[in-house]
Amino acid sequence: MTELENQLLKFENLNNIRVLIIKSSSNTFSSGHDLLEFDKSNSSDHKKVFDKASNLMKIIENYFIPVIVSIQGTAAAAGCQLVASCDIAICGQSSLFSTPGILAGLFCSTPGVAVGRVLPRKIALEMLYTGEPISAETALKYGLVNHVVEDSKIDETSEKIANKIASLSSSTMKLGKKCFIEQMKLEKEKAYELASNVMVENLQFTDCKEGIKAFLEKRKPRWN
Amino acid sequence: MTELENQLLKFENLNNIRVLIIKSSSNTFSSGHDLLEFDKSNSSDHKKVFDKASNLMKIIENYFIPVIVSIQGTAAAAGCQLVASCDIAICGQSSLFSTPGILAGLFCSTPGVAVGRVLPRKIALEMLYTGEPISAETALKYGLVNHVVEDSKIDETSEKIANKIASLSSSTMKLGKKCFIEQMKLEKEKAYELASNVMVENLQFTDCKEGIKAFLEKRKPRWN
Amino acid sequence: MTELENQLLKFENLNNIRVLIIKSSSNTFSSGHDLLEFDKSNSSDHKKVFDKASNLMKIIENYFIPVIVSIQGTAAAAGCQLVASCDIAICGQSSLFSTPGILAGLFCSTPGVAVGRVLPRKIALEMLYTGEPISAETALKYGLVNHVVEDSKIDETSEKIANKIASLSSSTMKLGKKCFIEQMKLEKEKAYELASNVMVENLQFTDCKEGIKAFLEKRKPRWN
Repeated sequence: MTELENQLLKFENLNNIRVLIIKSSSNTFSSGHDLLEFDKSNSSDHKKVFDKASNLMKIIENYFIPVIVSIQGTAAAAGCQLVASCDIAICGQSSLFSTPGILAGLFCSTPGVAVGRVLPRKIALEMLYTGEPISAETALKYGLVNHVVEDSKIDETSEKIANKIASLSSSTMKLGKKCFIEQMKLEKEKAYELASNVMVENLQFTDCKEGIKAFLEKRKPRWN
Repeated sequence: MTELENQLLKFENLNNIRVLIIKSSSNTFSSGHDLLEFDKSNSSDHKKVFDKASNLMKIIENYFIPVIVSIQGTAAAAGCQLVASCDIAICGQSSLFSTPGILAGLFCSTPGVAVGRVLPRKIALEMLYTGEPISAETALKYGLVNHVVEDSKIDETSEKIANKIASLSSSTMKLGKKCFIEQMKLEKEKAYELASNVMVENLQFTDCKEGIKAFLEKRKPRWN
Repeated sequence: MTELENQLLKFENLNNIRVLIIKSSSNTFSSGHDLLEFDKSNSSDHKKVFDKASNLMKIIENYFIPVIVSIQGTAAAAGCQLVASCDIAICGQSSLFSTPGILAGLFCSTPGVAVGRVLPRKIALEMLYTGEPISAETALKYGLVNHVVEDSKIDETSEKIANKIASLSSSTMKLGKKCFIEQMKLEKEKAYELASNVMVENLQFTDCKEGIKAFLEKRKPRWN
């Protein structure tokens, strides 16, 4: 978790990064916190772990570029929370998503913050109450993931989407993502005010002027 | 856009209007703003265009009667925003929904306000980040549209629903729609307070007294 | 309604209750308020009925243990509101869900509070405007119910889920449910603060210590 956070903070200072893919190096995307760690530490340590995880989710959600998550196998507990917190999610047909803390007597309350805001309330509650996983197909049905593909095609699909995003105007993408996050926190009327102003600002971008010119001239734009 | 707004404001003063269908006269529902217009105008003009569009969406959302949108072909950018802002949407199997501004370097920030409040967050973000359309089936899966029918049956289906709505008590419909919009902005407890009071008010309507009587007498009601 | 409320309040004082199933004794889950009652009473009586129903929904939503609803046949009006207000819902293939008040000139404004917060906006509005039911499959698609099973298997399925929940740590379940409800009312950052604190508290529970120990020792936990 510390490593992921450090990487994220480091990338944020690099101007030429256009899109991020988070994936695991193993066959299981993430099984969440290590319970052994909880068993051996005290309340003050516990607090630090949960605050660190919440902070990581906040960094990911507000990240300056689009964040794609590529899910091999199971995403459980904080792993499921991470999936819920990313912008776009691709998983394999065998992927499972769960918040199984209750099975060990530790209700997945922090994962519930993210999962409860992405899935319909009843689907989230059944996961939290029973600890049982939902399938990739169910995750797709309710928008926890964007695409379910053959397990062998996960990386290929994520990279295809990442390449598409990276091929577009980076300055526009950053402005647009920031605006989307900000406006979603506002009531609709204020949201429109903010978004209208951002569009006016966007129209002044060199990339936007080039993009519109290219569209009218029916040619490919050359981004800055 | 000005024409649609003027029509809407005119209809609002006509008492005998019971339901509205918005549809296009061409094979494409709407491809959004004209980029040529942006290319030739300045920031102050741009601001007016976006404020006008936001105002139009506000008028539609708060309209005094139900608003059905009937979608032939593609609904892109502000066209997709319009679909998201109506009450009920019917489209054809070949319909596509997109927020493609990013392809021209102009992120669809204002459409994102409406689309981000109707679709699951990840589905909305993929549309906004890649500019790629979702299909009619995907729009149905996530509730952006109510029904997908054969392209040749769009008008027929929209009119069937419109006729059903028009056959019911107009005074009750207006009261009910207004209450739904208002209560959805409130936290749940306040929402129930408001809605309870509206139901008590509704029970005093001549149409409601007739409707309940007709139900108990197992006959068709005669609306005012 | 009074009977259900009294039962709920009575159970709340019993410490050994772990999960609740609400079901009907007939083939129709609930057709809502009795219109004859409205016809024969005055505004002050009406107000009492709607306030009582809203209060019942509030009790169910904030109930101290998980609430499963088992739906035989149709759930209409306040019955549909009840389904929307429970934690987990199981229905049969022939089940229908509707808010048909408009057909009798009485818009389902209070059911709209619950239904509008569970279903996508357009799906809720079509139900409210036309009075027409949605099928079990549509309810499942949009998360109004968790599972659709053969009509003869409804009780069996509900009990299976109830047994699973009852087999887990009761103290953890109550803490977790309470936290989920509370945090969902907060903005995300505050929600994480609350949930982090609850997880730290949860780790001090005897059941949680036993649960983690059992997990690490690869044996079944023995709950308090």
